[in-house]
Amino acid sequence: MSQLSIRSQSHNYDVVIETGVRHQLDKWITKPYSSVLIVTDRNVSEHYLQDVVTSMEKVSTVHTALVPSGEASKSMGKYQELLDRCIETSLDRQSLIIALGGGMIGDLAGFVASTYLRGIDFIQMPTTILAHDSSVGGKVAVNHVQGKNLIGSFYSPVQVLYDIETLRTLPETELRSGYGEVMKHAMLSDSAWLEELLGRSITSLEDNQLIGDLEKGIRVKASIVEKDEREQGMRKFLNLGHTLAHAIEAELGYGEITHGEAVSIGLLFALQLSETRVNASGLPIKDYVNWMARNGYPLSSIQSLQPVALLKRMKVDKKTVNQQVHFVLLNEIGKACVVPIQDDVLLTELHRFQTEVVNV
Amino acid sequence: MSQLSIRSQSHNYDVVIETGVRHQLDKWITKPYSSVLIVTDRNVSEHYLQDVVTSMEKVSTVHTALVPSGEASKSMGKYQELLDRCIETSLDRQSLIIALGGGMIGDLAGFVASTYLRGIDFIQMPTTILAHDSSVGGKVAVNHVQGKNLIGSFYSPVQVLYDIETLRTLPETELRSGYGEVMKHAMLSDSAWLEELLGRSITSLEDNQLIGDLEKGIRVKASIVEKDEREQGMRKFLNLGHTLAHAIEAELGYGEITHGEAVSIGLLFALQLSETRVNASGLPIKDYVNWMARNGYPLSSIQSLQPVALLKRMKVDKKTVNQQVHFVLLNEIGKACVVPIQDDVLLTELHRFQTEVVNV
Repeated sequence: MSQLSIRSQSHNYDVVIETGVRHQLDKWITKPYSSVLIVTDRNVSEHYLQDVVTSMEKVSTVHTALVPSGEASKSMGKYQELLDRCIETSLDRQSLIIALGGGMIGDLAGFVASTYLRGIDFIQMPTTILAHDSSVGGKVAVNHVQGKNLIGSFYSPVQVLYDIETLRTLPETELRSGYGEVMKHAMLSDSAWLEELLGRSITSLEDNQLIGDLEKGIRVKASIVEKDEREQGMRKFLNLGHTLAHAIEAELGYGEITHGEAVSIGLLFALQLSETRVNASGLPIKDYVNWMARNGYPLSSIQSLQPVALLKRMKVDKKTVNQQVHFVLLNEIGKACVVPIQDDVLLTELHRFQTEVVNV
Repeated sequence: MSQLSIRSQSHNYDVVIETGVRHQLDKWITKPYSSVLIVTDRNVSEHYLQDVVTSMEKVSTVHTALVPSGEASKSMGKYQELLDRCIETSLDRQSLIIALGGGMIGDLAGFVASTYLRGIDFIQMPTTILAHDSSVGGKVAVNHVQGKNLIGSFYSPVQVLYDIETLRTLPETELRSGYGEVMKHAMLSDSAWLEELLGRSITSLEDNQLIGDLEKGIRVKASIVEKDEREQGMRKFLNLGHTLAHAIEAELGYGEITHGEAVSIGLLFALQLSETRVNASGLPIKDYVNWMARNGYPLSSIQSLQPVALLKRMKVDKKTVNQQVHFVLLNEIGKACVVPIQDDVLLTELHRFQTEVVNV
């Protein structure tokens, strides 16, 4: 079991990582709520909704709301449907929303909670490894047809309850996706932990390894976000690996590759750039490529993409300033910086990435 | 000219009350914004939009968005249309939204600003006296078909710029509406100011009187909200007069009577109840009724309504606890309290209100 306290601008909250939490919600949720709405998706509901309902019914009146699985549900339409459901079930200011699912459910249900009656309590129950990242930091949102996360709020949960049993049903590609962000958090913080991770096989993780990795990842995210909730400064470091990752996702078409898998490739590119652009030395590039290969990361997916097309995608990144792409790089493991990179340099580096680094 | 500093949970902001502010926005808005979206309604736009555009164009790229006048525009539909407009005009995190209008525009545009890109700056430019109340306190929202203000946020503007020239085109009923809330603020705070107000004719106010009344009203609102932004305790006092007012508005049909006029009648009932239920003495009931009559307040509108019907409306008030209506009353001017009132007592008091007090 692991329990962390996170500080947000408005309040402090606990993250509990434990086996079987979903069966003991009456123990973990200590505030009395007049009623509860559990928001989840159809995939997750098949496995875990009944457990959560049974456990919550011991302490409150329970309602449920299901949305289809997948990023398409993070929409204004589903946002409105859920608000209607809040009203239909007469949620009041003493009610609670539980977001049971991955990042999509957390973002969607969190945005509903942040605006229903000008904000009611919500609890995150993440069911993916990837969601260790999104469940901390207070960003909630829905997508607009013109772009991801364009409508949202900064609104933190009152608790994050992580039942690691719910991670045992994840397909391998979701394990890889989650460990993409875990790797990022290790590279931003701690070379000893990174070395440990590079020894792991993600399909044979023990409970204590998984709990430890989630806890360390959340600590890294939390320590940065506590200092810079509104992304004025160092929160930008959390974009390590994401500039290329977003370009890959967009260029391949959303859903063709998981977010965390794209991030894992973006991290490798950031390591390469760190060596050539800020003269970092001693980065474990080779070990990291080998780890990716051993764990089935789709390294080759970058090969089919044109450097010019990737560059064009990177230019519309939120971190682009005055038409110049800004990259988060590493001076060393645990020490990030933001560096502008010129277009021609980027094209050359992308070409080298495809021909040399990825083929190590 | 008057300038107040208001403290909110997230930041401090200034309220400027001045003649002709709309012509000098380049002077008052000191932060550089990449672009500006001015949100207003068709009525206000005819009088003042061009002035605001001309003045803002000196310092930024200016876009506009018009919605129809009236409460019906405070809807999810208009909220979405405005978000689309934000995206269409490429507002970014360094952009500004200006809410030019009364309370409806402030609530609607403020909610858009609070959720676009997880929150961008917005400035309130109130064009009604009533909006002195809503422009301070950080409540923004839209209505749902099932109820008013059900979807919203707590989100404060970065500035409130009150151009009192824009109040000079208000119809008399809007002057009365605004002074309903001004009276409430006086009753909650200051008997000397209340006495002054009772001597005023609202159709012949001098600039310095109007500026002074707005400033005092905003100070009362701000001092309460600064202590209790989320309405856990004393912010409830701001509901003085509102329990009956909401019932009157609902019973007559929204729009049949202005909000502030309904509040003015609710205040009179609260004064009566304060005498009988908390033994307040020395309340200026007679002077207040005379002031209302002299200024054309629609006192008689209460006469057509059934006490039983009003009671039923009051039972669904947000302040009702365990089916018992709770009233904000006055021990004396400047000293409020919250008191539960039994149904039969309320019916008797409503009957007496209709037959005796209103007919003084």
